[in-house]
Formats: sequence, C-alpha cells, structure tokens
Amino acid sequence: MGGTNSTFGIVNARGEILHRGAIKTNSCATAENYVKALSSGIKTMIADASLKGYIKGIGMGVPDGNMHAGTIEYAANIPWANKSIVPLTKMVTESTGLFCCLTNDANAAAIGEMAYGAARGMKDFIVITLGTGVGSGIVCNGQLVCGHDGFAGELGHTIIRRQNGRACGCGRCGCLETYTSATGVARTAREFLGNNPEESLLREINDRPITSKDVFDAAEKGDKIAKEIFEYTGKILGEAFADFIAFSSPEAIILFGGLAKSGDLLIKPIEKSMNENALYVFKNKTQLKLSELKDADAAILGASALVWEKPTT
Amino acid sequence: MGGTNSTFGIVNARGEILHRGAIKTNSCATAENYVKALSSGIKTMIADASLKGYIKGIGMGVPDGNMHAGTIEYAANIPWANKSIVPLTKMVTESTGLFCCLTNDANAAAIGEMAYGAARGMKDFIVITLGTGVGSGIVCNGQLVCGHDGFAGELGHTIIRRQNGRACGCGRCGCLETYTSATGVARTAREFLGNNPEESLLREINDRPITSKDVFDAAEKGDKIAKEIFEYTGKILGEAFADFIAFSSPEAIILFGGLAKSGDLLIKPIEKSMNENALYVFKNKTQLKLSELKDADAAILGASALVWEKPTT
Repeated sequence: MGGTNSTFGIVNARGEILHRGAIKTNSCATAENYVKALSSGIKTMIADASLKGYIKGIGMGVPDGNMHAGTIEYAANIPWANKSIVPLTKMVTESTGLFCCLTNDANAAAIGEMAYGAARGMKDFIVITLGTGVGSGIVCNGQLVCGHDGFAGELGHTIIRRQNGRACGCGRCGCLETYTSATGVARTAREFLGNNPEESLLREINDRPITSKDVFDAAEKGDKIAKEIFEYTGKILGEAFADFIAFSSPEAIILFGGLAKSGDLLIKPIEKSMNENALYVFKNKTQLKLSELKDADAAILGASALVWEKPTT
Repeated sequence: MGGTNSTFGIVNARGEILHRGAIKTNSCATAENYVKALSSGIKTMIADASLKGYIKGIGMGVPDGNMHAGTIEYAANIPWANKSIVPLTKMVTESTGLFCCLTNDANAAAIGEMAYGAARGMKDFIVITLGTGVGSGIVCNGQLVCGHDGFAGELGHTIIRRQNGRACGCGRCGCLETYTSATGVARTAREFLGNNPEESLLREINDRPITSKDVFDAAEKGDKIAKEIFEYTGKILGEAFADFIAFSSPEAIILFGGLAKSGDLLIKPIEKSMNENALYVFKNKTQLKLSELKDADAAILGASALVWEKPTT
C-alpha cells in the first residue's frame, strides 16, 4: 500500500508473481470503502485464476503499520487513516475470509530480501530503505525485530548530528533521514551549491527544485559538486551504520529504494566510512549489498513473504 | 569469570544458589591450568553436594566471550587469553563431561534478568552494565541478540559525541562509555572541578583520584557539582537510550553494575532526557529499571540461566 496506489498479486512459494491487480488508495473516503475495494479486487483475481481454496493468506506492507496489532496508525499520507488507528487485518479477514497480517514497508522489504533477495540464508541483517524518508527492517536470529509495541526499526530517526543538526519532519533535529533520504540529498545539494562558487551541472536546473536523481545524473557525468554530495551522504551513512553494527552485528546491510540505485557512487563512500568508524572487532566484517528484489515486484514479494514467516494461528 | 576471581555455584531451576566455590583466574599461567583448576573445583562441589548426574550443564559468563564459538578471544584482563582465542567450552566439556556454553558478562546479566530478575516475562529489553566500562545485553523476541559473529551488543561503543568526543580505550573518540562508565563519571568530575571555581566536597579528596563512588557520596550530601555530574551523565545516557529505543523498541532498559546503585540520582535525569529525546511514537513507553539480581549472585545466576536458554544439542 502506497499513498497513491495499492498493488496486489498472487505469489507462489518460489517467489513468482502469478497474477496482479491494483486499486487507488487515496480515492477511498473511509477505511471501510478501501477494504471493500481491496477485497473485491483480491476476490476477483483469485476467482479469475481459479485458485480459490489455495491461498495461504494475505500479507500487507503498509505505511505506519503495527505488526503486533495488525493496525495502520496515524499514517500521514493515507487520508482514511491519518487521524486514527484502523484495525486493517481484522477488516480484511472479515471481508475475504483469509488470514491476513501486515507490517510496515521497510519490514516487508526485509522479509522479502530474506525469502527471495539479497539476504537469502542470512539470520542477521538490516535493510535500509533510502526513499523520501529513511526506513529500516531489522532481522536478528532469523526474526524481524518489532519491539514490544510493534514499532522497532526507526533507524532513519536515530540522531547522527547532535549539534546544529538539520530539522526533521518528526519535530527533532539531526535525524539520519534529514541527511541521507532522497530529500536529504537534495537538501545537501542546495547547501553545497550555496556555499561553493564552483561550476556545476546542477546550476543549470532553474525551473524546478533539484532532486536526488539530478545529483545522480550530474555525478555520472563527472560533476565535482555532485560527486562531493554523494561522498558526504555516504560518509554520514557509514558513521550511522558503524553504530548499527555495534548494536546487532549484522552479516549484511542491504540498501533498498530509489537512492540505492546510485550503486557505487553511494556504496563506495559508505563502505569506506563504515569500516573507518566501526569498532575494531567489527571492521570489514559486515557486507554492504544492494537489494535484489525487482523494484515493481518488491512490495508484493515482501508483503507476501510475511505470510510464510508468520504462524497462521 | 572476572579478571581476578572466578566464582561458581550450583543453581536450581528456581534460581537458588545451592552451593558455591571460587578459584583465582589470574594465578593460572595457561588456559590448560585454568580449566584444570576450574574443573577440579566444580567436580569437588558436585561430589560434596551428592548431585552427580543431576547437572544439566555449565553456563559461563566471561569477558570477551564469543557465544557462537564458545571461545574467549583476546581478553585484555585475562593473562592466559589476552593474545589468543581459547576454545573454552570445548576444554571444559572435555574435562568435566558436562555440556558447557558461555557468553560475555553483559549477555549473561541479560539472560539472568530474564530468568530471575527485572525482565521476567519480557521478550524485548536491554541490559546496560555501568561499570569500569559500559556493556550491554540485548534481547529481542525473547532471544539474545548475538549477531552473525557472536559479538553484537557493544552499545558502550556507539558514538554519542562526534565532535571533540573523549578519547576511548578502543582507539576511537566519543564512545558512550567514555562519558557514562564509572571511569567516565570520574573523568567528568575532573573536568567539572577544573572548569568551575565553586566549592565542592570533591575538592577535599587530595590524596587519591576521585571515583564515581566519591561523586555519589558527595551528591547524597547535597553537593552541587556532584549533582551536576549525575545530571550530565544521565542526560547523555538518555540521549543514547533514545537511539537504542529507535532500534529495538524495548519494553524496558535495565541498569546493572556499580554505577546503577546510584538509584534516583542517575535514574531521574536519564528518564527525563530519554523521553525528551525519543521519537514521538516511543515517548514514555520504555521503562527504566534497576537490576533485581543480588550483586554477589548476579554473575552465577546469569551464567547458569544460559543453560536453560540454550538447547543441549
């Protein structure tokens, strides 16, 4: 479930998406309407595929999802859930007759990577989603870390700059996501261009705000300031990762989301900074990897994998 | 196992220590001598108690212990293990014929709190040991977080001050333990007394270095600078705890070790700072508790509880 669209599909145990569908998330005025539209779409898909009776359950990846409670809670970008707690899994089960479980987007990505992606065979890893914000899904001992309230894994909101840190949407200052999300990278670009009189391809963008994609394109063309922006972003991520490693000592940290497509431009400075900043016992032990889930499929695969993980009691 | 003494005991399932013994850790020249002395002590204790055949296994809490490998690795304070990796559980099993497992001191404390102490019934909590250094034992989903290499939970070595941070024994700067260990508190005392001309009971200590116990005693008597030292220490711990909560959202953070005996002098400023610094979704949710293990017994109980946790395969 995204703020605009909800995509769904039928996934088999090998991680193949056999059938697909989609509904609009934000055209529904109430949670009841949303569940009605979703259930109708799912039931039609199952009937068309002649797979009634063969479905193990429904896994959902939703913003601000509480895995323990099966709820979506005060989700800023979902009009029918931004001021309340919606018991989504209960409603979907009542409407479809199928077991349903949910988690937030980053946790779904982590489960997806473990079942089908870059974390196959791993029991200890962290997925960091670098998108509009910075999210995380943490797996320890082969299990998702949800915490006592279902909200663990907010690594984008750990403090990476305690003095003069950037203001964050969460109301605090210095959060990792203010520097290393796609939005954070664009913010760095504005700062660097303002503080540095050097020429840059980025100065040619006058008709709209600079995006992280612009920075990537410019860096690919060898633009000096654009490359410095990636080095700065990678340095900060590496500092943060060194602390995450001191917490759970993961076998790998896996990057997911739009910014992760920057590849070596981002990976190289992260790797350098991570190993420079790590405690001696952890140096050069944790792998840095890119997601192996196909972008369009990641959401569906990750959410579906949740059903294999969770006992259907 | 401490750097000076190794204490051992027979513990029943209710967490009662039925029999006790001790050997010197550092009077042994080699690992072989140590294991010989330890096994002899344990076998005598079991025979004297007429409990041969009734022992489920041996759990050990050792400095720089690797739970996965059953080894003690480059332990700075253990003369016979400070330059090598010693396969301790294997050696103890060969010498006693009993199943043996080990973990580091902080993890043993965490398992002990879960089995017999302040974390009974909890599945998600963190134990922070405030001693000469700062250690941690992390439990998520009811399981100890050991990481892929067995060394997870080095929260004393997360960076709390990235600019002009205090130099740490680990070779880096700004580690949490440089500010909040007993040694860190004494360091703060020296700084505060140097920067502040006000009167203080602490100035009367001239014949030896000030300790954290001196600061506690002075604060108890109402000394202003001593109280400010505790407020400063608590503020920094609270900042760190807010980030730990963003990681694993524990039901409680439990303080263990010498400095934890400072009670409200330390707890109050930590609580204030932790909730001020926490992300909104976590505010006022995580309990701050003091260890409920009796000091002299904590090491034995924590280590023994490890045997109940670990399958004896």
